Amino acid sequence: MQKTDIKCLVPDLPDVAEVLPYLHEMQANRWYTNFGPLNQRFEAEMIDFFAAQGSSGLSVGTFSSATTALELVLRAMQLPRRGRVLIPALTFPATALAVINAGLEPVLGDVDPDSWELTANDAQAAHSDKPFVAVMPVAAFGKPVPVQAWQDFQRISGVPVILDAAAALGQQAVPTDLITVFSLHATKPFGVGEGGLIATSDTQLLARARSLSNFGFAGTGGVVQQAGTNAKFGEYYAAVGLAQLKRWPEVMDRRSAVNAAYRQRLAPFEGRIRLQAGSEDFTPAVFPVYVKDKAKAITQAMAAAGILTRHWYLPLLHNHPALSHLEAVKTGTDVKTGADTALKACMQLEDSLIGLPFHGFLSDADIDRICQVLEQQL
Amino acid sequence: MQKTDIKCLVPDLPDVAEVLPYLHEMQANRWYTNFGPLNQRFEAEMIDFFAAQGSSGLSVGTFSSATTALELVLRAMQLPRRGRVLIPALTFPATALAVINAGLEPVLGDVDPDSWELTANDAQAAHSDKPFVAVMPVAAFGKPVPVQAWQDFQRISGVPVILDAAAALGQQAVPTDLITVFSLHATKPFGVGEGGLIATSDTQLLARARSLSNFGFAGTGGVVQQAGTNAKFGEYYAAVGLAQLKRWPEVMDRRSAVNAAYRQRLAPFEGRIRLQAGSEDFTPAVFPVYVKDKAKAITQAMAAAGILTRHWYLPLLHNHPALSHLEAVKTGTDVKTGADTALKACMQLEDSLIGLPFHGFLSDADIDRICQVLEQQL
Repeated sequence: MQKTDIKCLVPDLPDVAEVLPYLHEMQANRWYTNFGPLNQRFEAEMIDFFAAQGSSGLSVGTFSSATTALELVLRAMQLPRRGRVLIPALTFPATALAVINAGLEPVLGDVDPDSWELTANDAQAAHSDKPFVAVMPVAAFGKPVPVQAWQDFQRISGVPVILDAAAALGQQAVPTDLITVFSLHATKPFGVGEGGLIATSDTQLLARARSLSNFGFAGTGGVVQQAGTNAKFGEYYAAVGLAQLKRWPEVMDRRSAVNAAYRQRLAPFEGRIRLQAGSEDFTPAVFPVYVKDKAKAITQAMAAAGILTRHWYLPLLHNHPALSHLEAVKTGTDVKTGADTALKACMQLEDSLIGLPFHGFLSDADIDRICQVLEQQL
Repeated sequence: MQKTDIKCLVPDLPDVAEVLPYLHEMQANRWYTNFGPLNQRFEAEMIDFFAAQGSSGLSVGTFSSATTALELVLRAMQLPRRGRVLIPALTFPATALAVINAGLEPVLGDVDPDSWELTANDAQAAHSDKPFVAVMPVAAFGKPVPVQAWQDFQRISGVPVILDAAAALGQQAVPTDLITVFSLHATKPFGVGEGGLIATSDTQLLARARSLSNFGFAGTGGVVQQAGTNAKFGEYYAAVGLAQLKRWPEVMDRRSAVNAAYRQRLAPFEGRIRLQAGSEDFTPAVFPVYVKDKAKAITQAMAAAGILTRHWYLPLLHNHPALSHLEAVKTGTDVKTGADTALKACMQLEDSLIGLPFHGFLSDADIDRICQVLEQQL
């Protein structure tokens, strides 16, 4: 008997019925975008959400996507044109595109071979060698970025840090002295459809970024103070966001349970596979597993068994045709690994990282089926 | 007794109940963005919509806004970096911002003193003097751009023409050999919330622009071929668009009736006021009236009477701080008017154009009240 395919990602958004009361409000307001009352309420409730997680004193702004949020906050910072911005080579391409669209130059750094993230130590070493105007660490696969290390980096180097925590809403602690950007894309844990958030205590910077999302209109008289675009969030997405906040504990319960079941089922494979360092401490956005040199073979075996997988954040950034010209720097990681080229640790992940299905609707039977196929390939 | 304020614009979007069947489909699909089935259907129905209006053979693509649609189609054209793009100085700033964000240089041209639009003749004269890489005529206030003149211009000059018809969906004839961009912003006649459309017969160009709205992913293997951004439309907005299409005749009936009532009520003022040349032939997006040197006084009198007005497309582009550096060229209009500086006709509109309230919910009594205040100022 043909088994049903197991999807890699399944959005977990509110039911129409849960959004409906907010839609009726929107209709009564006849206000559909341009920072309307639902958007204001959603921003206020997200401030409370972060405060409840221990991050107080933040302001929050909505944007059409995390990509545009990153781009516009960089533009709002008015960094030197064509300035170098360090990002990891292992990230979703949007990280680099936001930098490029802001008129800046992404510079690719290696990741730690265990956490698969750019580290503050490596950034410091590379910055000492040749300075950056900003650094954008990435919460890879939803792993929270270690806040203290990046706060120290920013304080010591004087280089502003923007956390690309696109996939880590609800997991990432939000420091008031950095800038943190989250995605609300449908495939993210906290999905509304399309959208992004900036969280920061720098209200002036947030106001400038928000103005840039509304063409750059600022002050009185409807004049454009800095060239912006249209990257507004819209009242409908705010409505979904408000509904999503109410059911967030339930969404996270589902995801945590699947994560726990996976980890338990994979425990006996230790030594043959590796999980992301630190992954015992959070619920990820996706489920990457390291199986040395076997990512392609596993993909094929899974596909044959009706199981969909993804090579998340691969190809590496410099292997995208539009990004192949980007500068890459040797970081401490490359030096430690005795690499003769930059991005050595990233390259070692290339044929070894496989994203298993991960969403809140996986059953124990699904997980078992996935892990059986995986085991056959080890 | 205090009368209720008369609003300048009132969005005319579908009721929640009209959108609901599509939202249930979206939920059943669990597909919320990324060119989903509702988006595909909306694009197909818009192709039929344009065909029913006599514009056959088009392809249509959705974007997060008209601004991003203009930017991304310009980027997709891969014009020479920093190339000069002629636009009118009298337009919503997004026209210029899209050009700037595409890495090109907006060049400001004058408008015709009667139609308040950039003309193909003027563009040809300016192009002969110093060439452009593209020209972007604007359907000012929703007045359809004369298609034949611009088709001739494109054929003779070889310069591509992109019609910024943001406010003119349903009014603007859509030529297959040009590129036409429409806005679906809540305040536009065909509002869905946030959104934009590109209509063209150039399917390859549209595919490239669409790819740029999805980070630049193209072809197989999920690689970025050209640096893009996230400017996707989303299934919710497609749902509203599908519902809006069904009630469009009703929306247009309302707007046409208000337009006709206004024109009849204003007829006796002829000689003291001017309407946009050609305005007898279409239903506008907003209702600008020319009253020489009296725009400010009328604004104040209206405000005192609880009537909200707008100075649409003012200040002129070069009077926005972020756009003050833009090059302006003398056009045939300036030469005809014997102007010693460029943009003379535009400048003559500056203190004379006043946008009266215009939406489908104005009653005859509202229009009467507005026109009484206007008459007192003539």
